[in-house]
Amino acid sequence: MIVALAGGVGGARLANGLAACLPPDELLVVVNVGDDFDHFGLPICPDLDTVCYTLAGLNDPQQGWGLAGESWNFMAAIGRLGGEDWFNLGDRDLATHVMRRLLLEQHSLSEATRQIADKLGVRHRVAPATDDRLRSIIDSDEGRLAFQDYFVRRRAAPVFRAISFDGVDEARPSAAFDAALDDPALDAIILCPSNPVLSLAPILAIQGVRERLCQSPAPVVAVSPFIGGSAVKGPAAKILEELGISRDPLGLASYFGDVLDGLVIDQADADSPRPDIPVLLTETLMRDDAGQKRLAADVLDFTRQLRDR
Amino acid sequence: MIVALAGGVGGARLANGLAACLPPDELLVVVNVGDDFDHFGLPICPDLDTVCYTLAGLNDPQQGWGLAGESWNFMAAIGRLGGEDWFNLGDRDLATHVMRRLLLEQHSLSEATRQIADKLGVRHRVAPATDDRLRSIIDSDEGRLAFQDYFVRRRAAPVFRAISFDGVDEARPSAAFDAALDDPALDAIILCPSNPVLSLAPILAIQGVRERLCQSPAPVVAVSPFIGGSAVKGPAAKILEELGISRDPLGLASYFGDVLDGLVIDQADADSPRPDIPVLLTETLMRDDAGQKRLAADVLDFTRQLRDR
Repeated sequence: MIVALAGGVGGARLANGLAACLPPDELLVVVNVGDDFDHFGLPICPDLDTVCYTLAGLNDPQQGWGLAGESWNFMAAIGRLGGEDWFNLGDRDLATHVMRRLLLEQHSLSEATRQIADKLGVRHRVAPATDDRLRSIIDSDEGRLAFQDYFVRRRAAPVFRAISFDGVDEARPSAAFDAALDDPALDAIILCPSNPVLSLAPILAIQGVRERLCQSPAPVVAVSPFIGGSAVKGPAAKILEELGISRDPLGLASYFGDVLDGLVIDQADADSPRPDIPVLLTETLMRDDAGQKRLAADVLDFTRQLRDR
Repeated sequence: MIVALAGGVGGARLANGLAACLPPDELLVVVNVGDDFDHFGLPICPDLDTVCYTLAGLNDPQQGWGLAGESWNFMAAIGRLGGEDWFNLGDRDLATHVMRRLLLEQHSLSEATRQIADKLGVRHRVAPATDDRLRSIIDSDEGRLAFQDYFVRRRAAPVFRAISFDGVDEARPSAAFDAALDDPALDAIILCPSNPVLSLAPILAIQGVRERLCQSPAPVVAVSPFIGGSAVKGPAAKILEELGISRDPLGLASYFGDVLDGLVIDQADADSPRPDIPVLLTETLMRDDAGQKRLAADVLDFTRQLRDR
């Protein structure tokens, strides 16, 4: 059984590749909730939705988030009524948030996610990293910003100084995540090529997670989101630069520290200095479904090699 | 100054005609809230929205409710997620309910309605009949049904026995309605051709309203929603039949009782027995904007005649 830790677009793509390689009961995708926020009184969970839409084959492959063939008439009407229109909610996507709000009146976020994923046609298991309230806060040159204020409203323009997590003292792993970490059948833990700081750090910050990953008999492998020092999507490169971390295999390995048992990097970084852990060199860019499956297969092979050592 | 009491489609049409005849500060449209309900955690006010959309020229003239050029992608997505899809909410219309929910966190329904109407471009004043919670309950051969369960979910099929109003003991007229009833400048009160039982009775049931209409020096005039015993739209004829009230000028006048000072009926009912109050015979069908304005002008003339008596 494989656990994949994922944020948004990059994480969803590798998770989709893993889902193409593994039967439903052999993959658990554990998703960042640090980006979650309330908007228009609705619980918005951008990474959970990106992962579920992608695994259901309903995602918009161009923009990376949201649903394919989405329409935006709700947002246009909100604009006419003078409402906040800095965060785009598609007409179809909105139904997910409305249903989640109703489900959360009676259920945990895990159960709400399970029911939504099931209706969307997701076959593999998807769970939030925690059912507790965990919110990423960005410390920037413009002060402390709620995640979406930094990421969407300010388009990640402020200089990034640090990330912290509201609720982290109380947040515990969700039941599925917790059980998987203790499962003797756990074969590997894969850190997907999501933003290390914005998407993976919030998962690692949850009580006991970092320690349990370090102690797990299953190998922990990260797939670098950087190719030749650039991120495929999003502000990861800008943020690491502002934090003084190099966007190369050495920088990434030092950021994750002793959690990692292996690192997957792109061929473009073949000549970069390497950390003192096993490294797999492959093509990490996932152009399409076939590219997702190929990378996933490579990563799974790599974890098997690490296990067999 | 004119006060028009209105429900949905028929009321909105005459209100729109009155708005075409009167400057903004000389018309207050007082709207039924008995149909209001919570759906998906949102406050839905069907009659307020129908009136505002119509006065803003944004209404769908074919179906009578909702916005012209509406799209339904939210509802389709709700259906896919297994949500309740018996009550249709258009993608653009949804923005009204979301904004109202946010406004009601800080404001009365009157103020929320004022702000929404203003943004939509409504120039005349629109107010809910009450800011208090008032909900129509239908007593039927299938038992007591919440209004929208009767009206939309069951398509008004159950046999109608009686209507009652949850919250009626506490509900008081909204500030604008209350002030208008006491205003020495009040020239007439017009009961629009809305469903007498479903749309106008809830307004008349609010504390003191019936008495104040009876005592008002301004004439109170109803425009019949029936033409030759049939309603232009909706289940009014079926309901009156089930209540044993004849769908003719006599039946309607007896239903409203001593509130009325005059009645406007269609030429098709010229030969029907008439009640013992002044009656205006005219064309009551409003096919388009010109028809709305013509009927409104006729009704205003009639109220002037009654005042001059």
